[in-house]
Amino acid sequence: MNPAVHDERHFLSGDTVRDVVIGLSDGLTVPFALAAGLSGAVSNTHIVVLAGLAEIAAGSLAMGLGGYLAARGDAEHYTSELKREQSEIVTHTRDEEDEIYEIFQQYGVTRQESEPVLLALKRNPEAWVDFMMRFELGLDKPDPRRAVFSAATIAFSYVAGGLVPLMPYIVLSQATKALQLSVVITLLALAVFGAVKGRLLGTPWLRSAAQTALVGGLAAAAAYGLAKLFSTV
Amino acid sequence: MNPAVHDERHFLSGDTVRDVVIGLSDGLTVPFALAAGLSGAVSNTHIVVLAGLAEIAAGSLAMGLGGYLAARGDAEHYTSELKREQSEIVTHTRDEEDEIYEIFQQYGVTRQESEPVLLALKRNPEAWVDFMMRFELGLDKPDPRRAVFSAATIAFSYVAGGLVPLMPYIVLSQATKALQLSVVITLLALAVFGAVKGRLLGTPWLRSAAQTALVGGLAAAAAYGLAKLFSTV
Repeated sequence: MNPAVHDERHFLSGDTVRDVVIGLSDGLTVPFALAAGLSGAVSNTHIVVLAGLAEIAAGSLAMGLGGYLAARGDAEHYTSELKREQSEIVTHTRDEEDEIYEIFQQYGVTRQESEPVLLALKRNPEAWVDFMMRFELGLDKPDPRRAVFSAATIAFSYVAGGLVPLMPYIVLSQATKALQLSVVITLLALAVFGAVKGRLLGTPWLRSAAQTALVGGLAAAAAYGLAKLFSTV
Repeated sequence: MNPAVHDERHFLSGDTVRDVVIGLSDGLTVPFALAAGLSGAVSNTHIVVLAGLAEIAAGSLAMGLGGYLAARGDAEHYTSELKREQSEIVTHTRDEEDEIYEIFQQYGVTRQESEPVLLALKRNPEAWVDFMMRFELGLDKPDPRRAVFSAATIAFSYVAGGLVPLMPYIVLSQATKALQLSVVITLLALAVFGAVKGRLLGTPWLRSAAQTALVGGLAAAAAYGLAKLFSTV
């Protein structure tokens, strides 16, 4: 049936889109909130830019490398489970057969009804292992190039997102003026990003825009309040 | 077969463990790197603590709320796909039947062999929809309480992680001394966390400890270098 729906779904839940969303949403939010918080405590933008750049460097590297290790971990997990299934269909053939019956029983399919599928899988051990990986363990074959690409996508998106709220502090020297401009352009950027994300993920775009701007705004307000409180102590 | 393996796997890939790992790894890394970066540029720890606390507030809220929205988005995506499948098995019965054959064909199971399963699923429309959700779309039923719990777990772990590298700056007044202590206790904390994470996820614990400490160290070194560079310009 409708192949368009399948293509669309594949694209939308695409790993790259997810990586861009992860990087951009944190990149827009955290440096924004940090800069806002600091400008509630210091009057000069120099220290705000300094902290902001340090945060962008730290955040993008931590998230990018974290993404790299997570993707590589997924790949290793898949390989080790694959090896285990490959040996189990030989050493624990009966157990693995029972597992297939159990999978189908959850959906009201009797042993007798699922037997032809079992016999077909036993004809082809490679397909049997693939079937167990997907339907018993819920694991998809990972893309080997994914780890590096995922890391770069997340890190780059974080830097791109983080420079938006920092720009006013780089251009202007007075922290309060820069804060005002930063709030305006960042909330705008968050709303646009939220709307696009909503469209891509199939949730109502207006609500997604409002939610994304709200998260950034709340984080910034909390950081601002805390820094203000702490700087007057 | 071996139910112990299944329990274990369920626990290991458990959403709560994942949330703690997400919060802790970013919480230990980013405030650590930010504080290190700033202490490369300022001599007083007051501004480092200020920026660090603002970062922890911003980061924990941004990540926590982000986790909340992501979990709620997953739940909504599941519900909307469920409704679509429920209507499609009525309005596009033939297409949905073909999809079942196609799923099995990928594993070398012929139409004839998969027909008894199809007939069994058609007896029980609810099970049929569940089967399509799991095996066509790869979606698992989300836990309704997950969104709030996930948000709180990520945010709390971030705060807990973030306070570790910041503690020396709170206690000591000289930035370089505090930095040295912060590097030691944070790399230690990262290594312990990495080792525990490795044990839980089934990767070699020593390698996991080294990797996690390396990511934190690299992010901190980059932030330190950038802040040093910028402060001397």
